[in-house]
Amino acid sequence: MPLRVGILGATGAVGQSFVQLLADHPLFEVTALAASERSAGRTYREATNWIGADEPPERIADVEVQPCEPGLDCDLVFSGLDAGVAGEIEAAFARAGYPVVSNARNYRMAPDVPLLIPEVNPDHTALIERQDWSRSESESRGDGETRADSAVAHRPSPITHRSRGGFIVTNPNCSTVGLVMALKPLADAFGVEAVHVVTMQALSGAGYPGVPSLDALGNVIPHVGGEEEKMARESRKLLGRLTEAGVEDAALMVSAQCNRVPVLEGHTECASVRLATPASPEEVAEVMAAWEGPLAGMGLPTAPRRPLRVFADERYPQPRRHARAGGGMQVSAGKVQACPAIAPEGYGVKFVVLSHNTIRGAAGGAVLNAELLHAQGYLEARAEPAREPAPLG
Amino acid sequence: MPLRVGILGATGAVGQSFVQLLADHPLFEVTALAASERSAGRTYREATNWIGADEPPERIADVEVQPCEPGLDCDLVFSGLDAGVAGEIEAAFARAGYPVVSNARNYRMAPDVPLLIPEVNPDHTALIERQDWSRSESESRGDGETRADSAVAHRPSPITHRSRGGFIVTNPNCSTVGLVMALKPLADAFGVEAVHVVTMQALSGAGYPGVPSLDALGNVIPHVGGEEEKMARESRKLLGRLTEAGVEDAALMVSAQCNRVPVLEGHTECASVRLATPASPEEVAEVMAAWEGPLAGMGLPTAPRRPLRVFADERYPQPRRHARAGGGMQVSAGKVQACPAIAPEGYGVKFVVLSHNTIRGAAGGAVLNAELLHAQGYLEARAEPAREPAPLG
Amino acid sequence: MPLRVGILGATGAVGQSFVQLLADHPLFEVTALAASERSAGRTYREATNWIGADEPPERIADVEVQPCEPGLDCDLVFSGLDAGVAGEIEAAFARAGYPVVSNARNYRMAPDVPLLIPEVNPDHTALIERQDWSRSESESRGDGETRADSAVAHRPSPITHRSRGGFIVTNPNCSTVGLVMALKPLADAFGVEAVHVVTMQALSGAGYPGVPSLDALGNVIPHVGGEEEKMARESRKLLGRLTEAGVEDAALMVSAQCNRVPVLEGHTECASVRLATPASPEEVAEVMAAWEGPLAGMGLPTAPRRPLRVFADERYPQPRRHARAGGGMQVSAGKVQACPAIAPEGYGVKFVVLSHNTIRGAAGGAVLNAELLHAQGYLEARAEPAREPAPLG
Amino acid sequence: MPLRVGILGATGAVGQSFVQLLADHPLFEVTALAASERSAGRTYREATNWIGADEPPERIADVEVQPCEPGLDCDLVFSGLDAGVAGEIEAAFARAGYPVVSNARNYRMAPDVPLLIPEVNPDHTALIERQDWSRSESESRGDGETRADSAVAHRPSPITHRSRGGFIVTNPNCSTVGLVMALKPLADAFGVEAVHVVTMQALSGAGYPGVPSLDALGNVIPHVGGEEEKMARESRKLLGRLTEAGVEDAALMVSAQCNRVPVLEGHTECASVRLATPASPEEVAEVMAAWEGPLAGMGLPTAPRRPLRVFADERYPQPRRHARAGGGMQVSAGKVQACPAIAPEGYGVKFVVLSHNTIRGAAGGAVLNAELLHAQGYLEARAEPAREPAPLG
Repeated sequence: MPLRVGILGATGAVGQSFVQLLADHPLFEVTALAASERSAGRTYREATNWIGADEPPERIADVEVQPCEPGLDCDLVFSGLDAGVAGEIEAAFARAGYPVVSNARNYRMAPDVPLLIPEVNPDHTALIERQDWSRSESESRGDGETRADSAVAHRPSPITHRSRGGFIVTNPNCSTVGLVMALKPLADAFGVEAVHVVTMQALSGAGYPGVPSLDALGNVIPHVGGEEEKMARESRKLLGRLTEAGVEDAALMVSAQCNRVPVLEGHTECASVRLATPASPEEVAEVMAAWEGPLAGMGLPTAPRRPLRVFADERYPQPRRHARAGGGMQVSAGKVQACPAIAPEGYGVKFVVLSHNTIRGAAGGAVLNAELLHAQGYLEARAEPAREPAPLG
Repeated sequence: MPLRVGILGATGAVGQSFVQLLADHPLFEVTALAASERSAGRTYREATNWIGADEPPERIADVEVQPCEPGLDCDLVFSGLDAGVAGEIEAAFARAGYPVVSNARNYRMAPDVPLLIPEVNPDHTALIERQDWSRSESESRGDGETRADSAVAHRPSPITHRSRGGFIVTNPNCSTVGLVMALKPLADAFGVEAVHVVTMQALSGAGYPGVPSLDALGNVIPHVGGEEEKMARESRKLLGRLTEAGVEDAALMVSAQCNRVPVLEGHTECASVRLATPASPEEVAEVMAAWEGPLAGMGLPTAPRRPLRVFADERYPQPRRHARAGGGMQVSAGKVQACPAIAPEGYGVKFVVLSHNTIRGAAGGAVLNAELLHAQGYLEARAEPAREPAPLG
Repeated sequence: MPLRVGILGATGAVGQSFVQLLADHPLFEVTALAASERSAGRTYREATNWIGADEPPERIADVEVQPCEPGLDCDLVFSGLDAGVAGEIEAAFARAGYPVVSNARNYRMAPDVPLLIPEVNPDHTALIERQDWSRSESESRGDGETRADSAVAHRPSPITHRSRGGFIVTNPNCSTVGLVMALKPLADAFGVEAVHVVTMQALSGAGYPGVPSLDALGNVIPHVGGEEEKMARESRKLLGRLTEAGVEDAALMVSAQCNRVPVLEGHTECASVRLATPASPEEVAEVMAAWEGPLAGMGLPTAPRRPLRVFADERYPQPRRHARAGGGMQVSAGKVQACPAIAPEGYGVKFVVLSHNTIRGAAGGAVLNAELLHAQGYLEARAEPAREPAPLG
Repeated sequence: MPLRVGILGATGAVGQSFVQLLADHPLFEVTALAASERSAGRTYREATNWIGADEPPERIADVEVQPCEPGLDCDLVFSGLDAGVAGEIEAAFARAGYPVVSNARNYRMAPDVPLLIPEVNPDHTALIERQDWSRSESESRGDGETRADSAVAHRPSPITHRSRGGFIVTNPNCSTVGLVMALKPLADAFGVEAVHVVTMQALSGAGYPGVPSLDALGNVIPHVGGEEEKMARESRKLLGRLTEAGVEDAALMVSAQCNRVPVLEGHTECASVRLATPASPEEVAEVMAAWEGPLAGMGLPTAPRRPLRVFADERYPQPRRHARAGGGMQVSAGKVQACPAIAPEGYGVKFVVLSHNTIRGAAGGAVLNAELLHAQGYLEARAEPAREPAPLG
């Protein structure tokens, strides 16, 4: 019997993506949609400017949208909220005992909140044990990455056993995830010391209405607000080591230059990496291609068969052709070559990596996070408040 | 009185660009158009699938296209020939005594052929003195960069005085020129040891018909054939030092990753540089912005007022807005920041650079080369074969 | 047990589409791939420049490509051949007894070849009875629509019973099918006398490499070779009436202006129609939306649930959002309004229609044709030439 | 000595276009820039998100933006205001005695306001004599086309002599102008009874930020709000006849279907026309190509050498190649063919027409209107309020 899930920010771009990805999910059933006051009380169809292909699933289209307040009839919530409001609302749901699987950036860097890519750092979910939202005051918090940081940090003391308490788990920025998935097997095999990465990011990463077409068409915008810092900061936490004291950031120098290009889906990134031990491009490509990751055999519904695919054809990967590989969850790489600029002979390698920004890099990543939490036993049905009347649709 | 010029490969993409740029040039007057046998004998209008905006200039449109053989009525030729044929044809013109100002890649790396950016290495034109085409045999040569190399190298012995002899001068690849113009003031001020550069190149760089639209639209192609090697090789020669023995390559490690993006004009490049002496991003930006270059005050018609413009606005430069700055001859830069990945603290800097690929990076670069040669006294009117009847148009 | 099918022109754009659409088809199993001599003998993976998303299906990728000659081990062939070669090759297969379900234009206008949209004129398959390829000489024929016409016409005499003989069935041009499917219910309900239609056609309609990106990006090309004539001619045959003497063209005046726009998939068309009897836009929209078509209840696997969907939202249909509706087989319409220019008050109506050009307008249309033929009993397993060794994959 | 001009709405998309077009104008010198309260008090450079290529002209960039209130130091104003505010502000300027040359839609259909294309209906400027803003009350008016209509209509009585009073002149919608310029010579030569027109409009027509890139890229939007009605209404007024009682609309039925396509500049339109007297496509093309228009010989600086250019090449006109012909002021046409759907044999003709939407269709059209007014003596220097200190720059 599937867990009942609510979607916060259901009418926005990320929320719409959640709706699509969860339409036929074997573990989760959407039972509540929540959005801003403006949308509340209308059907999902009426409240939503559906930006994807086709239309919202029939079953969902006529559901009434509720306000983003605890009390939703569900066992966990997915959050596609904007950072401007996610801090307070997600905290309120956590305090009310809901697991919150969030795509927002507000709590990503909080010391006791897992920043999670299931294939990369599945053990970081243990941070959940340190969260104790029942004792946190209901003050305003989490409305910025730094402030969230301290807000969580000042809470009394971590507890070691958690039962029925709410918590927050986050997934990284859409441009971080592809890079880190390509780096993970290299970090394990050779050690990774430094990365210079140049992104060519899809327009859908900016949400809707997002980038004006007059800026986008036939153009490159060499700037994506805040993205370069996020890539540096998040990569170190994701590749960090879980210790008694929390996550110890990886000693990895990441320098990013982020660009917007006229592509609809799929962030393409050119990375140049300094390894800790020497390796030829062929060895690097082989390690990437052979990487199975820790999810192999776990049967998580959204996990791709292989996390990383390495192309031999030098024209690939390309966003229009390969972003949707593995349902948008597989990361593609290619053009693995030596890079003599970033490191001495034998230590430098460069390659191209591609990932789907709104699936793997947003809603799909969050769904996979929830599947991992489910497999690890962090999710359970909450005490049911009178489920008799068929919930929706 | 303007010098009379011929255009080799006049009907192709680069040739069309020459026709446009020379339409109202104060120093040069187009008196001959040459192209393949297929086009010869037809008017320029008939022979040309004009790909630019609007149409060929009236005066040129009715000129009869001639075959690419010495005998053209002109004082010098510009070559927009494809590399497949440029080697032999350009050699034939040089042997026949014509100065050849070429955009083709065939002779760029030949030791006695200047690879020239007037703002960067104007003194390299002295290599012309080493060329002695009158003594070269009429064998097949120059049909590949390496072969051209040796073909020129095996010629008897350089001469030190040249009079009325033909010669070849080349401009670099379209993705090299923007990078090297940004590096030049840094090399002078701080020394440059290594560069990792990622290009986002315009479709027009592939000529016509070039990239199929099904590959281009909404896509990134992480591969531009041969471009990565050219950027590395040409940069070292351009920034090299002229010695008694020829050009000594700069000790600069360039590692490039080249991409095609759906942009019509303007190559955008993200560079990360390791300096020889430390400098802050502010110092680097200031040195770039203050650079006047060696052409200041020379009054070359095609030279931009300043060779390099540095934007403070973090959203700029953008190809659609700034590629045509300075008539497409000014290079734009921006987003100068520290790069902690390529070098230890204080030695790494990254920035964005943009240049127009078909103007500065091709025909416009060649025209500026010719203007420099003119100012240096390398060009002169050849013995005039009966000029009475108005030449054309 | 599925019928065994071969694909002629399997490596081309349409052939690739057949491969995708037939990968998991309940009625048909691909057992032979044929292409030009250049591809024959190589595996499909090697011989094909796969232009779609992702890659060819695993099972197909290692199949050896054969030449386009009768002898293929299959019960029928789908033809994605270019018109330049389709005439002769398809005739050869028909003479050899194969049913040929073709997307090529060569035989569309031949009097005894059905030009077929299953929802529009399923009864036209009766023309097959008139085809007698066994008696046709093996002369060159069908290399142009007009010549095919007469070539077929001059054959001795139609026969009325067919057994095990080969035949050819065709689907219309990609820009004709959407228009005609929208017109069909109007023709039935009100009569249709004249149509002025302006197309905005996707780039994929031109095949690969097709339109150069420099012509396509940010541009409109007001010309698609031969398309305007095809739309006029084919519409009349499709909406024509089957009589003893063959198909009697509909008395419908179609005037088309065809444009190429920078869209990847989906032809959008603006049509203005003069009706034979007056109707309000609301009545017209209702008749379109209510149309079930003759396939309702037949269970053809590729048939969309409803052939035509009518949007109330004035911003729809849009190619990027709706071209793939119903697996690319459903036609979308919208913006039904009165058109006072084409007809007197009450008789003129205009609307927008959208169809997927490479699915409904090409390979998918042909597959649906084959499904109809199967349902009508025109397809059967041919005498099996030793099927023991599992054919492929 | 040039007239001093102010620009209302100077920071918006149309205002920026005015700034560019008037930078070096021989008749007009920009002496005042006005925009919303938010911009007032800042320099033009600071207040403006410059969306065009490059940057605002140096001389203008440091000018202080003023509020949109009468009192600007200038002899006339150009208005690039949004329709939401243009009604009141333009009326206020007219009441204060300024000639207002407006691109806004508010007064286009007012009976005593000229809706003007200088090549089409230059005599309509006589309507100015009917305007008497000195007697109009300062009530709210003109905030919608219909209300403006009646607001102007109810004013006391037209006067026949005007001196130093303010007035308003407008140019048509960007999609109307190309169509009407193509129709004008046909209306004169053959009579025009009905037009079905399908537009493919550039994104810049929607202003900035305008169309979100996720809606625009690789898509067609079959809807441009209000455009279809405007094209019908404005065409009739523009081609109407000036009588004692005002403009008598042309008896022309225009039915438009308007689409947005991913093009930056240039509206392409496919028109099908029913003529009053029969003409072959060749005759129609010849009449178009031969049309000199009433401005020939007048020397208006912005007028193209010929108003209409007709291409023989069936691939032309194309927006990317030809929108900027004649500085963006020449209209291009092509593909003139018979249209058997809209009219009986011989009376129907179809063609493609292209015009630059932000130059000819907006600011450039308004500048040409002002040049015509200048030539007709409607513009003069106003009493100069102390001009000593050089006004700006």
